[in-house]
Amino acid sequence: MAKLLLGKAVNEAINHRVSQKVDFLKRQGIAPRLAIVRCGDNPSDVAYEKGAVKKAGVVGIETQRIVLPESISKADLISQLHSLNQDESVDGVLLLRPLPKHLRADEGEIVNALDYRKDVDCMTDLSNAGVYLGKEIGFPPCTPSAVMEILDYYGIDVKGKNITVIGRSLVVGKPVAMMLMARHATVTICHTRTVDVAAIARRADIIVSAAGALGSLGADFVREGQIIIDVSVNWDPGKRDGQGGMAGDAVFEEIEPIVEAITPVPGGVGAVTTSVLMEHVVKAAEGK
Amino acid sequence: MAKLLLGKAVNEAINHRVSQKVDFLKRQGIAPRLAIVRCGDNPSDVAYEKGAVKKAGVVGIETQRIVLPESISKADLISQLHSLNQDESVDGVLLLRPLPKHLRADEGEIVNALDYRKDVDCMTDLSNAGVYLGKEIGFPPCTPSAVMEILDYYGIDVKGKNITVIGRSLVVGKPVAMMLMARHATVTICHTRTVDVAAIARRADIIVSAAGALGSLGADFVREGQIIIDVSVNWDPGKRDGQGGMAGDAVFEEIEPIVEAITPVPGGVGAVTTSVLMEHVVKAAEGK
Repeated sequence: MAKLLLGKAVNEAINHRVSQKVDFLKRQGIAPRLAIVRCGDNPSDVAYEKGAVKKAGVVGIETQRIVLPESISKADLISQLHSLNQDESVDGVLLLRPLPKHLRADEGEIVNALDYRKDVDCMTDLSNAGVYLGKEIGFPPCTPSAVMEILDYYGIDVKGKNITVIGRSLVVGKPVAMMLMARHATVTICHTRTVDVAAIARRADIIVSAAGALGSLGADFVREGQIIIDVSVNWDPGKRDGQGGMAGDAVFEEIEPIVEAITPVPGGVGAVTTSVLMEHVVKAAEGK
Repeated sequence: MAKLLLGKAVNEAINHRVSQKVDFLKRQGIAPRLAIVRCGDNPSDVAYEKGAVKKAGVVGIETQRIVLPESISKADLISQLHSLNQDESVDGVLLLRPLPKHLRADEGEIVNALDYRKDVDCMTDLSNAGVYLGKEIGFPPCTPSAVMEILDYYGIDVKGKNITVIGRSLVVGKPVAMMLMARHATVTICHTRTVDVAAIARRADIIVSAAGALGSLGADFVREGQIIIDVSVNWDPGKRDGQGGMAGDAVFEEIEPIVEAITPVPGGVGAVTTSVLMEHVVKAAEGK
């Protein structure tokens, strides 16, 4: 029976910390505020926005929803970001993505219009440079930060540990590799072109799986004593007696009896990301 | 007997390519120009500058030496970089580092004063972001680019290969890991806190050693069939019958009989870096 690394407890710890900071700021007349920019009414954007607004409410952060037409032009969206840069009442800006299709070719130009100091989910080049350089420029992306929070909360020291990261995306794989290496872990980054990921994973002390592929992390990837951080959130049509539900990369019922500890999906990493986002907003407000 | 991956042949290929591009630009009235900024008369800076000026001459790139007093203030150095940003006759700027001691605390602010489009040796945050993001922002650092040039020249495809990078610096280890991963290699980054680097190195198909530690790569790190890229340039007091000389991380006489191919030091990676620098200057000129 593996220890379950539950996001809930981590969440509560972060929320407590963030609430205290918000109270402190408010006593000084500063009310931290997050602007959420959404283009169109994509249901998953609406759901994410709802979750973020609710979480902000829990910790006392003000939110401002900016809903733009899905057909918005590049120039208008950039101009919206510029006005948020200027708006001193706004500390952090979350632009929901993916952007509408007609804007994707210009996504780089659009996201970099945001002041990196308000870039609480690491979409600008400068924020990404901060993750790579290990410098405090903007904020790291929320999901890899959530992984680090979970490791910290459960007292898992990564120094000198061999860690296999599966996935090389800019939202999880690459940044989590940088953050783990900054804590002196020895990191191997696997991806779709890696030969025999299972063998590499078995050698690791810790596996961070961000493949985004349901059932991709089977029993042959693990051994006794390992810690598994399952970052992915995949749709599993067979879950809940065929009603479908969320699941990670891990074949949980195969792996859980073997390893030492594992994050469940749902209830693991995903449960911590919006708390991390709120902490970024507060840090942005503190930095003013 | 290992195949020697000599820098000279790679150099000649790059120089040929760069000379042709310079000729083409000159026929259009564009004369690519590199400004080399030096603070003080540190002998290793003077030597590097001399090498760069000579190499530039070989490929037809103009150079402009800017020698500033070692005691220069931060404001004056930044103002010098700003004027080079404005100077349309200058395509690339190389600021020799390390900076004088009194400027090091402000090094981040100073180097970021340079326009990333003229940052031919990757000192700005935005150029580094480019390496991490795999986007064309500025230019990657010259040494890891030289490693990639050597691999390309000798027809070594890294796709799907397991590569152990030893060292996690921003001038070699991290960027070469990013560049190799972009070519679909599976990379493990080892460093001073890694447990049993030798075992990890032995499992690799290719080892890129940038430890900067004389004799750190011994026979126990390698096995038959491997390719060794020795990036470091260390001073070896015992070389040349005790006169001293340059040497890499590898204990060359131990490793060379075992592995398939190896870069010598000197005459390997180091011999290629200034050619890469010149190619960056030409690309900067082409981008205008």
